[in-house]
Amino acid sequence: MRGTILHAPGDVRIEDRPDPAITAPTDAVIRVAASCVCGSDLWPYRGIEPVTEPTPMGHEYVGVVEAVGGDVRRIRPGQFVIGSFFASDNTCDICRAGYQSSCVHREYVGAGGAQAELLRVPLADGTLVATPEAPDEDLIPGLLTASDVLGTGWFGAVAADVRPGKTVAVVGDGAVGLLAVLAAKQLGADRIIAMSRHADRQKLALEYGATDIVTERGDDGVARIKDLTGGLGAHSVVEAVGTQESMLQAIRSTRPGGHVGYVGVAHGVTLPGEELFYSHVHLHGGPAPVRRFLPELIDLVTSRSIDPGKVFDLTLPLDQVAEGYTAMDERRAIKTLLRP
Amino acid sequence: MRGTILHAPGDVRIEDRPDPAITAPTDAVIRVAASCVCGSDLWPYRGIEPVTEPTPMGHEYVGVVEAVGGDVRRIRPGQFVIGSFFASDNTCDICRAGYQSSCVHREYVGAGGAQAELLRVPLADGTLVATPEAPDEDLIPGLLTASDVLGTGWFGAVAADVRPGKTVAVVGDGAVGLLAVLAAKQLGADRIIAMSRHADRQKLALEYGATDIVTERGDDGVARIKDLTGGLGAHSVVEAVGTQESMLQAIRSTRPGGHVGYVGVAHGVTLPGEELFYSHVHLHGGPAPVRRFLPELIDLVTSRSIDPGKVFDLTLPLDQVAEGYTAMDERRAIKTLLRP
Repeated sequence: MRGTILHAPGDVRIEDRPDPAITAPTDAVIRVAASCVCGSDLWPYRGIEPVTEPTPMGHEYVGVVEAVGGDVRRIRPGQFVIGSFFASDNTCDICRAGYQSSCVHREYVGAGGAQAELLRVPLADGTLVATPEAPDEDLIPGLLTASDVLGTGWFGAVAADVRPGKTVAVVGDGAVGLLAVLAAKQLGADRIIAMSRHADRQKLALEYGATDIVTERGDDGVARIKDLTGGLGAHSVVEAVGTQESMLQAIRSTRPGGHVGYVGVAHGVTLPGEELFYSHVHLHGGPAPVRRFLPELIDLVTSRSIDPGKVFDLTLPLDQVAEGYTAMDERRAIKTLLRP
Repeated sequence: MRGTILHAPGDVRIEDRPDPAITAPTDAVIRVAASCVCGSDLWPYRGIEPVTEPTPMGHEYVGVVEAVGGDVRRIRPGQFVIGSFFASDNTCDICRAGYQSSCVHREYVGAGGAQAELLRVPLADGTLVATPEAPDEDLIPGLLTASDVLGTGWFGAVAADVRPGKTVAVVGDGAVGLLAVLAAKQLGADRIIAMSRHADRQKLALEYGATDIVTERGDDGVARIKDLTGGLGAHSVVEAVGTQESMLQAIRSTRPGGHVGYVGVAHGVTLPGEELFYSHVHLHGGPAPVRRFLPELIDLVTSRSIDPGKVFDLTLPLDQVAEGYTAMDERRAIKTLLRP
């Protein structure tokens, strides 16, 4: 099959690779209908995370089941399925509490590389959710977002305790931040402040339900949020970047007793304990337990209640994956969809 | 009046000081019936917090109202009252959300020094809660705990989302930790693991409802909590110390999706962002909004449903305040009650 390998920062290639096989009786192999490039793929691409060996890339996927192992009961060949970047048994205490991305048996699905024609998915029964029928072609981008960025933005909003009547701020205008705006709208937020300085992203944020745009960052951004909230800060703030600056911006934009939901993969972040103590915020986040939200998100997409697929502003054939990375790295694209 | 002044680390004295006066029309002045020494008083006493000038000490108090300012409506001279270490208006948005210790008008009541005969309490109507009648003498220690350590332990348990069916661990066996055990029991926890290596404190923890005692600390303590919880960690962990070691012990003892309630005043704590991200815990805490809990806690004490006053294992006349500090510093006493 054809699959994507990152050899070194900036050096991502499509290559011939061996087809993945069923290696455990709980596995499935799927034929990828669509995959995409994640903001987190840019960390190693930019050399901020080390690349120690040639690494298969991609952890977002939708596709059709090709084969299943002997112990797979619920998932069947031919089904159109969506899964998360972490495989989970969906039966352990941690999964049942809704934290499938910390499942005691979790495996990183991306290890095999989803930016490819075929993908092995461990723990298929626990990990994959099938659509009721083969989806219309135009729904595929939206369903693909449920695999990560939509589920992650949604978790950010849930972790930030977004509810009707609340004022929500979103730090980060990548696909996750934009879909956190969409999630906040769906969860009934009264007011949604998107922090963005890019016209195209501001436009999509407004389409997704943002009521205010703040272009300032850092201390100025915090001051602006305070201005907009009677000096108190937002009730709920979603952090969707993962840097020290964005975490502090999120914490400082939240009122005492408010909630920060942080879903940007933390890189080089250290939180000052005393400031956090006196901030009185709730802090929750981490790798989104996408599996918790998949049934609901699939419903919302297939019923055309939401259109999260708009975050893909570049669609390329898998063979042009390198251009997909470059466009995102240079901020020419919000998010690249890849069709094998 | 007589009041306590800290002059330098280890040098705490009782002195003649001017009587406090009503300085704002929302003030009250109370005659202190009982005060005490807090674990947090030991930070400057031990020189871990700098002592830059002679500092009035004490922020926990119960007493009888002597005088009120012209704008005070609810509180009247002669009432027996309990308040928190932070004065709050109890009407702003932050107070109404239950975060009175971050009230937009908050003032530190301890600034005047509660280890004294008289104390000025700002924002009397918002800050003080009167008992229905003058309490029996033997209830005074319990009511005094509501002013801080009981309210703080209670907030720790609430912040850690303690509920029926849950397994709770408490890091720290000072008065706050012990009263977090009591709070967890009241809030219906299934199993309560107290982390303590002192026989007298273990005994009180068991009296207050602890089901297990863990004497190990640090990584060994974490391993022991994991052993006791099927490898997963506790659902809820209360942190009641405030050091780097105890915060990490609390976070690492909590299962993914679980809750850490941290109420130990943070000193030199920096939290590693990546570890926190992947831990999947909820983190909440800070200076306890004691005022939120006062009506309920006063009821529980006056109805003799709980006996939090047992944390006072040393009672001294105010004149012997220095011995009260020394006994706690040397861990000869859990907590010292002072009677003016």
